[in-house]
Amino acid sequence: MKATLIHQPGDVRLEDVPDPQLHADTDALVRVVASCICGSDLWPYRGANTFDEPWRIGHEFVGVIEQVGAAVETIGAGDFVIAPFVWSDGTCPMCQRGVQTSCDNGGGWGGEDADGNPVDGGQGEWVRVPMADGTLVATPSEPDPALVPSLLALSDVMGTGHHAAVAAGVHEGSTVAVVGDGAVGLCGVLAAKRLGARTIVAMSRHEPRQQVAKQFGASHIVAERGKAGVAQAREILDGIGADSVLECVGTGDAMTQAIDVTRDGGVVGYVGVPHGVELPIRKMFGSNIGINGGVAPVRAYLPELLDDIWSGRIDPGAVFDATLPLGQVADGYTAMDERRAIKVLLQP
Amino acid sequence: MKATLIHQPGDVRLEDVPDPQLHADTDALVRVVASCICGSDLWPYRGANTFDEPWRIGHEFVGVIEQVGAAVETIGAGDFVIAPFVWSDGTCPMCQRGVQTSCDNGGGWGGEDADGNPVDGGQGEWVRVPMADGTLVATPSEPDPALVPSLLALSDVMGTGHHAAVAAGVHEGSTVAVVGDGAVGLCGVLAAKRLGARTIVAMSRHEPRQQVAKQFGASHIVAERGKAGVAQAREILDGIGADSVLECVGTGDAMTQAIDVTRDGGVVGYVGVPHGVELPIRKMFGSNIGINGGVAPVRAYLPELLDDIWSGRIDPGAVFDATLPLGQVADGYTAMDERRAIKVLLQP
Repeated sequence: MKATLIHQPGDVRLEDVPDPQLHADTDALVRVVASCICGSDLWPYRGANTFDEPWRIGHEFVGVIEQVGAAVETIGAGDFVIAPFVWSDGTCPMCQRGVQTSCDNGGGWGGEDADGNPVDGGQGEWVRVPMADGTLVATPSEPDPALVPSLLALSDVMGTGHHAAVAAGVHEGSTVAVVGDGAVGLCGVLAAKRLGARTIVAMSRHEPRQQVAKQFGASHIVAERGKAGVAQAREILDGIGADSVLECVGTGDAMTQAIDVTRDGGVVGYVGVPHGVELPIRKMFGSNIGINGGVAPVRAYLPELLDDIWSGRIDPGAVFDATLPLGQVADGYTAMDERRAIKVLLQP
Repeated sequence: MKATLIHQPGDVRLEDVPDPQLHADTDALVRVVASCICGSDLWPYRGANTFDEPWRIGHEFVGVIEQVGAAVETIGAGDFVIAPFVWSDGTCPMCQRGVQTSCDNGGGWGGEDADGNPVDGGQGEWVRVPMADGTLVATPSEPDPALVPSLLALSDVMGTGHHAAVAAGVHEGSTVAVVGDGAVGLCGVLAAKRLGARTIVAMSRHEPRQQVAKQFGASHIVAERGKAGVAQAREILDGIGADSVLECVGTGDAMTQAIDVTRDGGVVGYVGVPHGVELPIRKMFGSNIGINGGVAPVRAYLPELLDDIWSGRIDPGAVFDATLPLGQVADGYTAMDERRAIKVLLQP
């Protein structure tokens, strides 16, 4: 089959790799219907993470099950399934507490399973899914093709934006600011709206992204950055800052901006993978600003968010503004790297 | 009148100072019935904070109002009142949101008010209280003297322990660990119990403090420190660590211990004034451990906690294991510095 490998920063290729096969009786084989490129894929693409050997990249996909191992009980061949960006057993203490990203037996796409067998990446034609019962969530029936982008968003960005909102304590009537206008930040806007926020300030300089932010429920857009942006946002946010701020980037500047836009007693929910972030503990202490979040356990949120997509209440698929055949995956990376696309959907 | 000044680390003296008088018509004059020494008073006492001139120390007191300014409406002469460890207007946006420690117009004891008039410290015979309506909370009637220690605990330690528990998200059925066996940590145990925690691990090496912790509701005591203590606590806490950890010390070691005892997806509620704390953002991100808390807005919690003391449901006054006349305030500092006393009550 074909799958995507990253050889070095800036060098992504679709190549021939071995066809996957069932290894464990808890595995499923999924034919990928759609996958996509994540903002976090840009960290290694841009050289922020070092690696020695080419590896199978991509961790977001939806598809149809073609085959399951003998022990798989809750899903079966023909089911349309959504894969979270980590696989997990669904039964360990961490999974039971909704922290599937800390599953005792789980792992990430493109790595290895507990038996040392390679696990496929998401940007390919097929994926062997370990612990299929714990990992995959099936849709109620075959989805309308128009729903596929929104379902694919549940693999990562919608669940991650939702995690930021939950971690930041967004509730009915909250005031919210969102730092980061990538797909996760935009989904954070949608999540905050869904949770009942009364004011949502999206911090974005890019007109197409501003439009999606408004479509998703942003009440205000702040295009300024740095101190001017902070001042403008705080002014909108009752003059004091937001109850909840969603940090969806991961840089030190973004975290600083997030904290500076938070009102005293508020919380920053962060989901951007931290790169060069140092937390100002004394400022946080003096102003009672909490920091909560991390790698999003999107599996925990999948059922409720799927319900809302299925019933048409939310449409996170609007973050996909480009669709490419898998063979043009490298172009997809370039488009996202150059911010010409918010998020690229790949069709095998 | 007599009041306490700290001249330099280790040098605390009761001295003659000017009698306070009303400056603003929102002031009240309070005759102190009881005050006390705080664990945070030990930071300057031990030289952790630098200062050039002697200053009026002490920020916890209860007393009886002798006189109020013309604009004071909710309390009056003869009322027994509890003073939180900061004064606040009660009307600004931050006070309205329960973050009185960030009051637009408030401040700390021993400093100055907005008009530049000195504000008395708490370890004295009298205190001029600015913004008396916003700051002070009166008891329903004259308290039984036996209740005074518990009421005094509302000035700081009980509200602060409660803030740690609230910030850590303690609720019915939570598993909790408490780092720090000072008065705040012990009150944190009491607060966690009051909020319905099902397991409470108090980390304490000192037998008298262990006894108070048990009295306050600790289900387990862990005397070990460092990695051994963490391992022992995690074993008790379902083998995975606590849902909520209360960090009530403020040192880097204490924060590390707190984070290491927290289960993935849990929250550290911290109220120890940070000294040398660096937060491990990557670890926090990977394990979804949140950090929430800060300087406790005890004024926000005073009414509900006062209710519980008044009805006999909680007895935080048990943290006072020594009572001294105000004239022996220096001995009180020595006793707490040497950990011979958990917390010293001072009687003018």
